[in-house]
Amino acid sequence: MSTSSALPDLSALISRRAQTMTASAIREILKITQQPDVISFAGGLPAPELFPLDAVRQAAETALNKYGPAALQYSTTEGHPPLREWIAERHGIPAQNVQIVTGSQQGLDLLGKILINEGDTVLVEAPTYLGALQSFQPYLPQYAQVPTDEGGIDVDALERLLQTTKAKLLYAIPNFQNPTGRTLSLERRRRLVELTAQHGVLLIEDDPYGELRFTGEALPSLYALGLELAGDVDRNHVVYCSSFSKTLVPGLRDAWIEAASPIVAKLIQAKQGADLHTPTLNQMMMTELLPLLPAQIETVGAAYRERGAHMLRQMDEQFPAGVAYTRPEGGMFLWVTLPQGVDTVALLPRAVENKVAYVPGQPFFALGGGQNTMRLSYSSATPEQITQGMRALGQTFREALA
Amino acid sequence: MSTSSALPDLSALISRRAQTMTASAIREILKITQQPDVISFAGGLPAPELFPLDAVRQAAETALNKYGPAALQYSTTEGHPPLREWIAERHGIPAQNVQIVTGSQQGLDLLGKILINEGDTVLVEAPTYLGALQSFQPYLPQYAQVPTDEGGIDVDALERLLQTTKAKLLYAIPNFQNPTGRTLSLERRRRLVELTAQHGVLLIEDDPYGELRFTGEALPSLYALGLELAGDVDRNHVVYCSSFSKTLVPGLRDAWIEAASPIVAKLIQAKQGADLHTPTLNQMMMTELLPLLPAQIETVGAAYRERGAHMLRQMDEQFPAGVAYTRPEGGMFLWVTLPQGVDTVALLPRAVENKVAYVPGQPFFALGGGQNTMRLSYSSATPEQITQGMRALGQTFREALA
Repeated sequence: MSTSSALPDLSALISRRAQTMTASAIREILKITQQPDVISFAGGLPAPELFPLDAVRQAAETALNKYGPAALQYSTTEGHPPLREWIAERHGIPAQNVQIVTGSQQGLDLLGKILINEGDTVLVEAPTYLGALQSFQPYLPQYAQVPTDEGGIDVDALERLLQTTKAKLLYAIPNFQNPTGRTLSLERRRRLVELTAQHGVLLIEDDPYGELRFTGEALPSLYALGLELAGDVDRNHVVYCSSFSKTLVPGLRDAWIEAASPIVAKLIQAKQGADLHTPTLNQMMMTELLPLLPAQIETVGAAYRERGAHMLRQMDEQFPAGVAYTRPEGGMFLWVTLPQGVDTVALLPRAVENKVAYVPGQPFFALGGGQNTMRLSYSSATPEQITQGMRALGQTFREALA
Repeated sequence: MSTSSALPDLSALISRRAQTMTASAIREILKITQQPDVISFAGGLPAPELFPLDAVRQAAETALNKYGPAALQYSTTEGHPPLREWIAERHGIPAQNVQIVTGSQQGLDLLGKILINEGDTVLVEAPTYLGALQSFQPYLPQYAQVPTDEGGIDVDALERLLQTTKAKLLYAIPNFQNPTGRTLSLERRRRLVELTAQHGVLLIEDDPYGELRFTGEALPSLYALGLELAGDVDRNHVVYCSSFSKTLVPGLRDAWIEAASPIVAKLIQAKQGADLHTPTLNQMMMTELLPLLPAQIETVGAAYRERGAHMLRQMDEQFPAGVAYTRPEGGMFLWVTLPQGVDTVALLPRAVENKVAYVPGQPFFALGGGQNTMRLSYSSATPEQITQGMRALGQTFREALA
């Protein structure tokens, strides 16, 4: 054979879009936090001790008995019909408007693929879910940041932005947002749905945490408000994404999209090329687990309520003046804002020395900002870890502010 | 709220790449073949009666007992370490050069995403696996068809093509190709690996069927020849894709890519945005099933050998003169060529009237051609179905040629 000097330069073959991909900033940051003894609030994992392990074991057994080899065969791209039907009934829509996806992350990737042309403007909250930016990035959008305040998206600022910016889509997490824990009020939801409709902007609602509310009244989804506005499921400009990852278990990767037929038709075609279908057995298992869902939502919600409340009490006690934080009504995260001038990336090694870790807020901003912010997750921490961790974090803050 | 006249035109929001997506031609064709009483050789499903159902049930139980909640938690993008290690050992490469994917289809999508710029030339066999065209299409390549003959890729024709065409990658299925069932000889394999290296073309080897050989000697993979040429796993210009779908079960969606580190690094980033990771439990279950793999390969291979041989005997007896077909050494498919002028798309309704169905060959050609060809699958047919089906197909051919 010829000599290896003739070999292609593999790095030179990488596509332009893939050259813009970078290792997740969080992924890199998490490495420094993974030292023994460090109490980490950096991850965003659901509490594993609350997973319904026995019920999952039973669901596998039941699905294999009920469906036999069909549980292990190739299956339809759209998804397991009983699962689609159950999802559709919640919003009172036809099952054909539901597409099963392999985790919400795949939903975001497929939506990016079927919607975003290079250079299209995608509106995102500032800050927003980092994973959504990673899903959209390969399709080479431009981002515009929608200003937010304590109530989430600032709809007046959005209105001004839409007057000067031609956008293709807006991506929003209205319930217990990742990373801030903020929830959008009913009035703002209505304005958001109306404004995007008027400006021809598709509205993607990502709602993984909505069922995990600990306080206050459940609010209508953007999807439901869009349906009310359109009067027709196939003209609704809101696309709804949700998942069983935060209520039941994440590792089976069962999630879904609800959308108008012109969107679903393209999602099916895109998903055929992306992974043919979501694993058959996993969808059947999830269907068997559905009767357990209300009790599981209750259990997980109660645990997170208690953990979040305990964290907030400790923060109230331990954090120095000048440090602000959100008080989430549900979900897994809260958001801390330090005085201007404190850089939470630079502060992290000192926190780790003090045996505590967080995620700096900056990677959650599509266009930068948030140097003085951080995200904390309380979902999988014990009371002792929270008490000790908030004491260490308060100490770190006092050192930084001294 | 405002009136629905302000609603966005959803179809107008679809991306340019998604506008080029079409429903799979096969998917549409299969609809007309799904009538009762029709014996269909159109699908390409592994034989479900050979799935190791009890072992899968036991593997779920074992994985859940062994790993507990971790079997249901989020997990690493790269994949379950013991599974990666097992795969890596087969080719004697480090585990870090193995990326687990959610079915080979996802592997092709991710490779398209990290390699193909709009307008890049992708070389494919004529005919090739339709699903690969669907995976690559969203990245808007140009295709060039590599001529093939009874021995698969015509390497002399490829050499001439490479002298005039600047290509980014070549996609090949060297073993029991889908759709033709053809296998590339050792000499052609060497030429293919050398020619692509010399011309700076990345070579994607898709090998889902390689283990299912019924006759003849196993040949070295293109990947192994590329490794020999490069002398370094991280300079190998051949990327290897395979799957457990055809040997164990397809519905768990466990497959993998072996590649040089510059490729794997980008695959990890692309997969993070595409679905975070392949379902955790499924990878652990597949790892538990690995000891069963040799016996399962034996069982499935023996069944397909018998079914394929029976189909060929029936074809020899029933088909009129002028109809040619391949004699695969393994896999699930064979390929029928009718005399020029016969259009197998136009012929299908008559075949269905005669209670038999096939897939016309034309959709397997990236740039058209093959109007007089068809693919038949013997993997999941009974002897009676094969006997009756080949009689009906022979009858259909005689009618067409009359």
